[in-house]
Amino acid sequence: MAIEEFQFTESLEKQLSDLVQSDSAELIEELLENHSSGELARAISLLDEEERIKLIQLINSESAAELVEQLPTVQAVQLLEEAEPGQAAAIVDELPSDLQADLLSDLDSNDAEAILRLMLPNEAESARQLQQYDESVAGGLMVTELLRYPDHWTVAEVVHDLQTGSDEYRDYQIQYTYVCGQEEQLLGVLRLRDLLLGDRSRVLRDIMIPNPVSVSDTLSLAELHGFFQQHHYLGVPVTNEVGKLVGVVQRSDVDQAWIEQQDRSFLKRQGIVSGEEIRAMSLWQRASGRLSWLSLNIVLNLLAATIISRFESTLSAVIALTAFLPIISDMSGCSGNQSVAVSIRELMLGLVRPSDVFRVWMKELSVGVLNGSAVGLLLGTIAYLWKGNLALAIVIGSALTLNTIVAVSIGGIIPLILRKFGRDPAVASGPLLTTVTDMCGFFLVLSLASNFIEYLV
Amino acid sequence: MAIEEFQFTESLEKQLSDLVQSDSAELIEELLENHSSGELARAISLLDEEERIKLIQLINSESAAELVEQLPTVQAVQLLEEAEPGQAAAIVDELPSDLQADLLSDLDSNDAEAILRLMLPNEAESARQLQQYDESVAGGLMVTELLRYPDHWTVAEVVHDLQTGSDEYRDYQIQYTYVCGQEEQLLGVLRLRDLLLGDRSRVLRDIMIPNPVSVSDTLSLAELHGFFQQHHYLGVPVTNEVGKLVGVVQRSDVDQAWIEQQDRSFLKRQGIVSGEEIRAMSLWQRASGRLSWLSLNIVLNLLAATIISRFESTLSAVIALTAFLPIISDMSGCSGNQSVAVSIRELMLGLVRPSDVFRVWMKELSVGVLNGSAVGLLLGTIAYLWKGNLALAIVIGSALTLNTIVAVSIGGIIPLILRKFGRDPAVASGPLLTTVTDMCGFFLVLSLASNFIEYLV
Repeated sequence: MAIEEFQFTESLEKQLSDLVQSDSAELIEELLENHSSGELARAISLLDEEERIKLIQLINSESAAELVEQLPTVQAVQLLEEAEPGQAAAIVDELPSDLQADLLSDLDSNDAEAILRLMLPNEAESARQLQQYDESVAGGLMVTELLRYPDHWTVAEVVHDLQTGSDEYRDYQIQYTYVCGQEEQLLGVLRLRDLLLGDRSRVLRDIMIPNPVSVSDTLSLAELHGFFQQHHYLGVPVTNEVGKLVGVVQRSDVDQAWIEQQDRSFLKRQGIVSGEEIRAMSLWQRASGRLSWLSLNIVLNLLAATIISRFESTLSAVIALTAFLPIISDMSGCSGNQSVAVSIRELMLGLVRPSDVFRVWMKELSVGVLNGSAVGLLLGTIAYLWKGNLALAIVIGSALTLNTIVAVSIGGIIPLILRKFGRDPAVASGPLLTTVTDMCGFFLVLSLASNFIEYLV
Repeated sequence: MAIEEFQFTESLEKQLSDLVQSDSAELIEELLENHSSGELARAISLLDEEERIKLIQLINSESAAELVEQLPTVQAVQLLEEAEPGQAAAIVDELPSDLQADLLSDLDSNDAEAILRLMLPNEAESARQLQQYDESVAGGLMVTELLRYPDHWTVAEVVHDLQTGSDEYRDYQIQYTYVCGQEEQLLGVLRLRDLLLGDRSRVLRDIMIPNPVSVSDTLSLAELHGFFQQHHYLGVPVTNEVGKLVGVVQRSDVDQAWIEQQDRSFLKRQGIVSGEEIRAMSLWQRASGRLSWLSLNIVLNLLAATIISRFESTLSAVIALTAFLPIISDMSGCSGNQSVAVSIRELMLGLVRPSDVFRVWMKELSVGVLNGSAVGLLLGTIAYLWKGNLALAIVIGSALTLNTIVAVSIGGIIPLILRKFGRDPAVASGPLLTTVTDMCGFFLVLSLASNFIEYLV
């Protein structure tokens, strides 16, 4: 395969659309194989619904499954929802077990049930079992496709099974084989190289690595991520509460889930509260998903605005102040959001915990004092040069200094406090922060101005 | 290993600090082995500089290297900078080649040179070579530790080499062995299972998978990420411009680099312009890193404030308007940032390209019209109920509607335009957006108010 295939072709969506119109299934499959996941995701999102349905009808379910594996979850779900249930079931049959469960959980429950009923009975059974796990614990992230052998087998027997079963095992990510006892409890692990280098007459229980590292099916994604950062393993076996081997979590799946979680967190921070929006979604879905957040923000903004209203007489007397109110609000929001971002990231990396509130507060307080003084001095100077009123400059500058200190220090601890109370810091930190800093900022400017009104007019 | 080890202990930093005081090297090494990367990163960041230096002196360089591998890059660099150059060199000797190059590039160039001079000659040589690559291309992400054999060797010869060299190969992530010709050009690949299942007398060139997939050493991180999403491989060989095999890029390293890139992008969006800040960094570094962004924001905010100043007579006449100016500014910023976030994410996923400006603009325009009407109506209603002035309510409501449409539609395209001109959308989109929407918003409110001033007073 040449590298050129990873360069952008200007018209993949056009090619796809043309091939769909002319029913050229084979050419489509070839096209799908030869483009990167990003290109495919983009092209698929540019087709209209009718074209997407026809595309899925045309290609075989294996190719469709490979396509579905490469798309972002939200797009994969969309494809399955649009397809006929029978076709969707044939595609889901071909997917690895962890993805089956993920997609079925994200589908409308009626759609999911219709698909499950049409799937191969054993695939449906395992999908139903995996669906019972939360998506972000080991049980929800593991695959059930794994190689397990009884501890009394010999190396020769295993090698024979690998050779005869190689068709079925083709899609397995075989790095390890697991050795189990009679109750399917995990006893040991063998690397392929142990089999390769081992004497073929020996019994597994004698050459296996006993008491292998395993994780509980309830281990969280964050803990799994930490686990794989610490260990070089490509996968780790998963056991249930009675020690039975139930699946394998692959490093790559944990990395993928971790990336998606960060992705969602990024969107949430910017007011896409559901954590998911791509432009291929319907207008209504996109607009309403954003609106809930905006409506909340209006209400919070009004709270801050009531402070301004209380000082209308001061504002009437010193109308020059009005130009500075949005500056104070925006600057404090910026400073505070810097602290929020660092805290959210440190929470994600495990560098801080909710109990570190005091330490973080102290750390941020010092940054707040430094930067608050700097921006206060800067804005004060500009205000003096612009309006020529020293008292005004001092009021504006010191209000910004004080409010920056407030914003930076509470910005650092808001995410910790939200986490402590089980809330998602990504969603709520921003609006909480700006409401507090706006109210405080407006109050500081206007009450200082009221107190020194005689120097200002 | 039991799962309990991944649960939080309240006092790892305390334990570490105590063990450092009492020179208990072995206990420290045991402690390091039994904690997850997140816990270690946190504990290390809580030690003071003196304790960190002593810790590194106490433990052997292998344990130190394992620790360094688990820490976030910025913390790993800090440890190496604080350590004696000789100690740092011994640690870097033990690291995988890609991490060596990464860390040395991030160190102050004098520190890096001092360490390179004290490293083992062959390790230093390969680190210098890798350092020539950009960190975010295949050459900078690959490891040079790989298994390569001449095409005329037999399976038995390879198995013998694997057995005798197993000590050296212990840390290699052996999934594939590569078959090379006389000029070290890549001819084929063998999976371990091919060796396991193959006849030991056969020659590699006859059983290898010929013309294997490989990538150029200049392939970008985004393209590598797409590559691994499309292919199930655990690693891919890297060749230089003459087809010589120069290294292997592991899936896990690409995932890791991708996560870090997204991480930096997240921080940049929130005004941590360098893309890196942890609270273990010095106060000065942290404060100044944030300040540059804040200073720029002040200047941009002032631009918007000049609009308000021009309408002081209108504001004096209708002082109630002042309470709504920050609301218009904040709400438009929120709406616009939602679009910015979706575009930045779609750019990262490859779902949009800079050339899609018109399509994205149209998509966002419709969201802007819907949500603009909704928030305009909401704020207008509230303004009427609060101030009891219908004309004021209409002015405020329609200004917010219009400005939301502007904010949402330009928010969607700003990241695309910045990318088109080679700028980082994460850093510049926010300030650009809010400046434009503030200016436009203030102008809309105040010019509408001026035109209908007789109904407002």
